[in-house]
Amino acid sequence: MRGAILYGPRDVRFEERPDPKIVEPTDAILRVAAACVCGSDLWPYRGVDPIQGPRPMGHEYCGIVEEVGPEVRTIRPGQFVVGSFMASDNTCPICRAGYQSRCVDVRPMGAEGAQAPWLRVPLADGTLVATPDLPPEDMIPSLLAASDVLGTGWFAADAAAVTPGKTVVVVGDGAVGLLGVLSAKELGAERIVLMSRHEDRQKLGLEFGATDIVPERGDEGVARIREMTDGLGAHSVIEAVGTQQSMLQGIRSARPGGHVGFVGVTHGVEIPGLELFSSLIHLQGGPAPVRRFLPDLIDRIWNRTIDPGRVFDLTLPLDQVAEGYRAMDERRSIKALLIP
Amino acid sequence: MRGAILYGPRDVRFEERPDPKIVEPTDAILRVAAACVCGSDLWPYRGVDPIQGPRPMGHEYCGIVEEVGPEVRTIRPGQFVVGSFMASDNTCPICRAGYQSRCVDVRPMGAEGAQAPWLRVPLADGTLVATPDLPPEDMIPSLLAASDVLGTGWFAADAAAVTPGKTVVVVGDGAVGLLGVLSAKELGAERIVLMSRHEDRQKLGLEFGATDIVPERGDEGVARIREMTDGLGAHSVIEAVGTQQSMLQGIRSARPGGHVGFVGVTHGVEIPGLELFSSLIHLQGGPAPVRRFLPDLIDRIWNRTIDPGRVFDLTLPLDQVAEGYRAMDERRSIKALLIP
Repeated sequence: MRGAILYGPRDVRFEERPDPKIVEPTDAILRVAAACVCGSDLWPYRGVDPIQGPRPMGHEYCGIVEEVGPEVRTIRPGQFVVGSFMASDNTCPICRAGYQSRCVDVRPMGAEGAQAPWLRVPLADGTLVATPDLPPEDMIPSLLAASDVLGTGWFAADAAAVTPGKTVVVVGDGAVGLLGVLSAKELGAERIVLMSRHEDRQKLGLEFGATDIVPERGDEGVARIREMTDGLGAHSVIEAVGTQQSMLQGIRSARPGGHVGFVGVTHGVEIPGLELFSSLIHLQGGPAPVRRFLPDLIDRIWNRTIDPGRVFDLTLPLDQVAEGYRAMDERRSIKALLIP
Repeated sequence: MRGAILYGPRDVRFEERPDPKIVEPTDAILRVAAACVCGSDLWPYRGVDPIQGPRPMGHEYCGIVEEVGPEVRTIRPGQFVVGSFMASDNTCPICRAGYQSRCVDVRPMGAEGAQAPWLRVPLADGTLVATPDLPPEDMIPSLLAASDVLGTGWFAADAAAVTPGKTVVVVGDGAVGLLGVLSAKELGAERIVLMSRHEDRQKLGLEFGATDIVPERGDEGVARIREMTDGLGAHSVIEAVGTQQSMLQGIRSARPGGHVGFVGVTHGVEIPGLELFSSLIHLQGGPAPVRRFLPDLIDRIWNRTIDPGRVFDLTLPLDQVAEGYRAMDERRSIKALLIP
């Protein structure tokens, strides 16, 4: 088959790769219905995260089960499934506590390379969740979003303790931030402030449920949030960027005792201990345990309650994957959908 | 009156100070029944936190109300009261959410200087909690402990999400760490591991409910915790020191998705963002909102369920306050009680 391979900075190629096959008896092989480019793929694409030679790319996926290993018990060929970007057994104590992205036997799906027509999924029973039936085609982008970008935004809202009536600030207007807005809305937030200075993203944010847009960044952005909250700060903050500036902006936008959920992969971030101490905030973040939320998210998508697939503003055939990276790198696209 | 004044590194004097008086109509004046030296007092005492000229010391207190300002409604002269080390109105949105130590009108009691026979308490109605009656003398050390060191240990256990059945690690065997052990025990922890290498503190920790003692520190200490928890780490960690080493030890001792409550005043701590991200832990700390817990803590002390006053292993008349600092600085004493 042919799939995406990253060779170096801004050098993604669509090239021949070995067809995936069952390696472990708990594996499944999927025919990928749709894949996409993740904001986090841009770190190695831009050379910020160096790579050790050519590597397959992509960790978001949904599709139809083609084949399963002899120890797969619940997943069956022919099912349409969605899985997390981290494969997990879903039975260890860490999984049972809801932190499947740190399963004792976790397998990053990035190593398999989901930007391809076929995909091996390890730990299939633990990782994959089947939809009630084969989905209509227009629902596939939303189901794909559940695999990472929606699941991550949802986790951020969960980590930020979003509950009905709260004021939520979202730092970052990428696909995760925008779906953080959608998640906060679904979880009952009263006021949702999206920090954004890009018109197309502001528009989608408002459609997803943002009540306010703040274009200022850093300490100016913090000052605006204080003004809007009687000087107190927000109850909940979703940090979906991962830089020192965005992390500090997130911490400083929260009120004492508030909650910050951070899901941007942190790059060069050092959190000043005394500032965190003084803030009295709750801080939680990390690779989202998407598996915890998948059944609920699939339900909401299946019932047409939410339409997270709208973050995909560019659809390309998989063989044009390199253009998907370019468009996102140049901010011409929020998120690029790839159809094998 | 005469009270403790810090002049510079290791220079505490018992000297004439103005008698406190009602300044604001919401003030109360207490006759201090007992005060004490806090581990955090040792930072300026040792010169680690520089001071701007001579300053009164002490922020932990209990005693009898002597006089109240004209706007004090619920606190009455003659009551025995305990207050937090942070005075708060207990009515603002931050207080109502349970974060009184960051009240919008917060007043640090350290500015008043509780190592003295008389004490002004601002915002008396919000800050002070009366006991059901005048306490027996032997209960006074425990009531005093509620003012900070127990309240802080309790908050740490709360921030670390200690609930029945959990494994809890306590980093730090000072008075706060030891009362963190007691708090974890009261909150139902199944296993409580105290990191300690001092025999007297180990002994008291075991009496307070510790099930295991680990003398190793840093990465060795972390390795021991992993061994004891099937490689997973603890559910909950109480960090009660405030150094870079103790903070990292705390974070690394928690399992993915676990909770770390940190209450040691952080000194020179920088938390590596990527490590925190990867850990998936919940992190909360800061100046303990003791006021939230005071009614419950006073109840437990009044009913003789807990006896936190046992952390005081040295009792001195107030005029020997300098010896109290010396004894704690030299680790001859865990915590020094001062009787005016």
